[in-house]
Amino acid sequence: MAKVNARVLKGFRDYLPEAMLPKQRMLDTVASVFESYGFAPLSTPALEYSDCLLGKYGEEGDKLLYRFADNGGRDVAMRYDLTVPLARVMGMNRNLPMPFKRYQIAPVWRAEKPGRGRYREFLQCDVDVVGSAELMADAECLAVGAAVLRALGVERFQIRVNNRKLLTGLMARLGVAEGEPTHAVLRSVDKLPKIGEAAVRTLLAAENGLDAAAVDTLFQFLALDPAELGAWFAGNEVGLLGAEELGTLLSLAAEQGLSDVVAVDLSIARGLNYYTGTIYETFLSDLESLGSVMSGGRYDDLLSMFGGGSVPAVGISLGVDRLLAGLAELGLTEPQASPTRVLVTVFSDETRPASYALATELRRTGIATEVFLGSPRMKKQFRYADQRSIPFVVLAGPDEVERGVFTLKTLATGDQQELNQDALVRFVAKPG
Amino acid sequence: MAKVNARVLKGFRDYLPEAMLPKQRMLDTVASVFESYGFAPLSTPALEYSDCLLGKYGEEGDKLLYRFADNGGRDVAMRYDLTVPLARVMGMNRNLPMPFKRYQIAPVWRAEKPGRGRYREFLQCDVDVVGSAELMADAECLAVGAAVLRALGVERFQIRVNNRKLLTGLMARLGVAEGEPTHAVLRSVDKLPKIGEAAVRTLLAAENGLDAAAVDTLFQFLALDPAELGAWFAGNEVGLLGAEELGTLLSLAAEQGLSDVVAVDLSIARGLNYYTGTIYETFLSDLESLGSVMSGGRYDDLLSMFGGGSVPAVGISLGVDRLLAGLAELGLTEPQASPTRVLVTVFSDETRPASYALATELRRTGIATEVFLGSPRMKKQFRYADQRSIPFVVLAGPDEVERGVFTLKTLATGDQQELNQDALVRFVAKPG
Repeated sequence: MAKVNARVLKGFRDYLPEAMLPKQRMLDTVASVFESYGFAPLSTPALEYSDCLLGKYGEEGDKLLYRFADNGGRDVAMRYDLTVPLARVMGMNRNLPMPFKRYQIAPVWRAEKPGRGRYREFLQCDVDVVGSAELMADAECLAVGAAVLRALGVERFQIRVNNRKLLTGLMARLGVAEGEPTHAVLRSVDKLPKIGEAAVRTLLAAENGLDAAAVDTLFQFLALDPAELGAWFAGNEVGLLGAEELGTLLSLAAEQGLSDVVAVDLSIARGLNYYTGTIYETFLSDLESLGSVMSGGRYDDLLSMFGGGSVPAVGISLGVDRLLAGLAELGLTEPQASPTRVLVTVFSDETRPASYALATELRRTGIATEVFLGSPRMKKQFRYADQRSIPFVVLAGPDEVERGVFTLKTLATGDQQELNQDALVRFVAKPG
Repeated sequence: MAKVNARVLKGFRDYLPEAMLPKQRMLDTVASVFESYGFAPLSTPALEYSDCLLGKYGEEGDKLLYRFADNGGRDVAMRYDLTVPLARVMGMNRNLPMPFKRYQIAPVWRAEKPGRGRYREFLQCDVDVVGSAELMADAECLAVGAAVLRALGVERFQIRVNNRKLLTGLMARLGVAEGEPTHAVLRSVDKLPKIGEAAVRTLLAAENGLDAAAVDTLFQFLALDPAELGAWFAGNEVGLLGAEELGTLLSLAAEQGLSDVVAVDLSIARGLNYYTGTIYETFLSDLESLGSVMSGGRYDDLLSMFGGGSVPAVGISLGVDRLLAGLAELGLTEPQASPTRVLVTVFSDETRPASYALATELRRTGIATEVFLGSPRMKKQFRYADQRSIPFVVLAGPDEVERGVFTLKTLATGDQQELNQDALVRFVAKPG
């Protein structure tokens, strides 16, 4: 076999255990919170017929598809997101009982220019309620999002909500046409946290063609108290509907004890064009600069892309890598080279059965345990635990085996104690 | 957007919740058993440089790669297995502390002709000890494999072990040359359970060119009791080494309480050429016809394919789809349309806060709970639970809310009872 240079494609990466263990723990928690709200997992292929993906992500998106002819000459492309595959599944399974509550955690591929924090392969993590127009579904997305962050140990965060219908009503009042002109204004507004009010005012005038009065009206809207929305939109049907939806959403959030973490932010616009109602972004209060870690909204027209009529839908999407980085920065997760809590050393062939027996008992109690593979000098066995930050090491020498005890060493402190099996299991089972 | 026909590529499939939930549960159990033995997760990209994969799977394998030029003109291919990426990781991370114990559960892609149970995208599930030549590592693979099956509820199974060195010694004795002639004989022997002794004898003579005496010797070997191996291989160095390794492996398995599930089967040959010592296959005793659900062995020369010298390694691989089919046939898993255990209905806007409060409490206790999205007629809400086989439905009407109770209905029996919140949580938390 010709030796080739081992290397990874630019924009792709290996996750060695030290990085993968915390990521896996986070994803397990996320999935279990999703399921606690009744969301069920869906899995779709990595490859799709290209025509199922083309035209769904705009011209720019089409160019970023990993698209090729497969061995049978079929025009195929790698999954670009999880929403279009969901739409395809809905198109192929018209008899699924509605609402359909699903989550999917899976990699997607985009041939973007790799950069800081931007990869060509990354995990998406989406949870959606399909087939319900009820605002209770929107509120459930907020609730499940908040529950995820709490389960991950985040105490201080804010979900900022808005409603696209308010923005639509605003645009009508400003005289901005639907479609691209509206999207362009929203993109300018979206830059507010990054570039500030003065720069956005300049943008709105220079790039979006708004006159001074319109710019003032827009900023007047942004400064409104949610309670003033009804009066402000008097006579503006879509704006009033947005105000009503937002009010109902806030009540539903309050009924679920979410008032502390949900706040109205009329400047939230969301980049994507397909939202039709509720929209939200989520910020960690102690790490605002990280940007939104969880966002989404209602998109009632998108899932009909494969025919079968309009299907209302609302969802929330976790930025896995960003959130993981945030958790690390907040000290809520740390690199971990091994899942092992206890290393049981092996003194000799004769004592090995006692080492195996203890390990079996520890695992039965749910404690991840390794028996050292071989029986070299103890120094080498301790180094194994040290290199992997395994917290406890057990010695089971002939003397200990004869007396029916074990010596337990806590590596962090160097403390050493002799314990029988039951006491040892209890000791290492204690958290911390 | 032009409407296109929603469809899935041949050889690929969606897993709707009903199929995905049991699969996800199985994979979660598998991963948690792997970690209980100290194996850590590794994740590698779906795409690799083609030259990292080409030539590693034989000529046939090269043709089955999903290989293409990416947008930057790089020659890339989709992951074909998890072993070559592991070798690449080892080649790129020479300073990883050894032994390196990792697992990886990930899809692989092969452009094979799709057929019954054969897909172009399927999950591989590998656990390997890299960098240890100790037979304790081989025994650990048997132990972790047995623990996986037990954790999945399988009580009756057999791990059949053999050692490639015995087969090498046998071939020397039969005068069969190393390399392809040996592999061809082993492939013939591998057909024994499928076509029987007579047909294999014919094959060995006709296709492998063995004379009658050699064929007899081969079948004499296959009938040996493990205790006779030492005498039979007297003077045959590699055969004796194989006998010694197999004996040690059996002792190590016995020390871990595995004697009941591990048995020597000298006819196990394993198709792949790269094994160098211990080999094994696993059969469900109540479903032998399913074939091996878990197999692997020691491959001490393979991981050096990216340079850096020989690295001993031993592993075991789960046939995820086959094992899942076996679990279903044994009644150990069943389709499940929803993770939800309790549906809390909503009578009206006024009673909704009570429904939310109960759901929050149930989830806090670890019980997956949905609150119906909306408040239509109860008949519709019950149908929702029925369609998804949700076991319990809670009614919280104005009368119940006023009295601080809930009506709990068990759908399977139709039983209905009035309970306060604490009693309700206790009742639905009971297994079954």
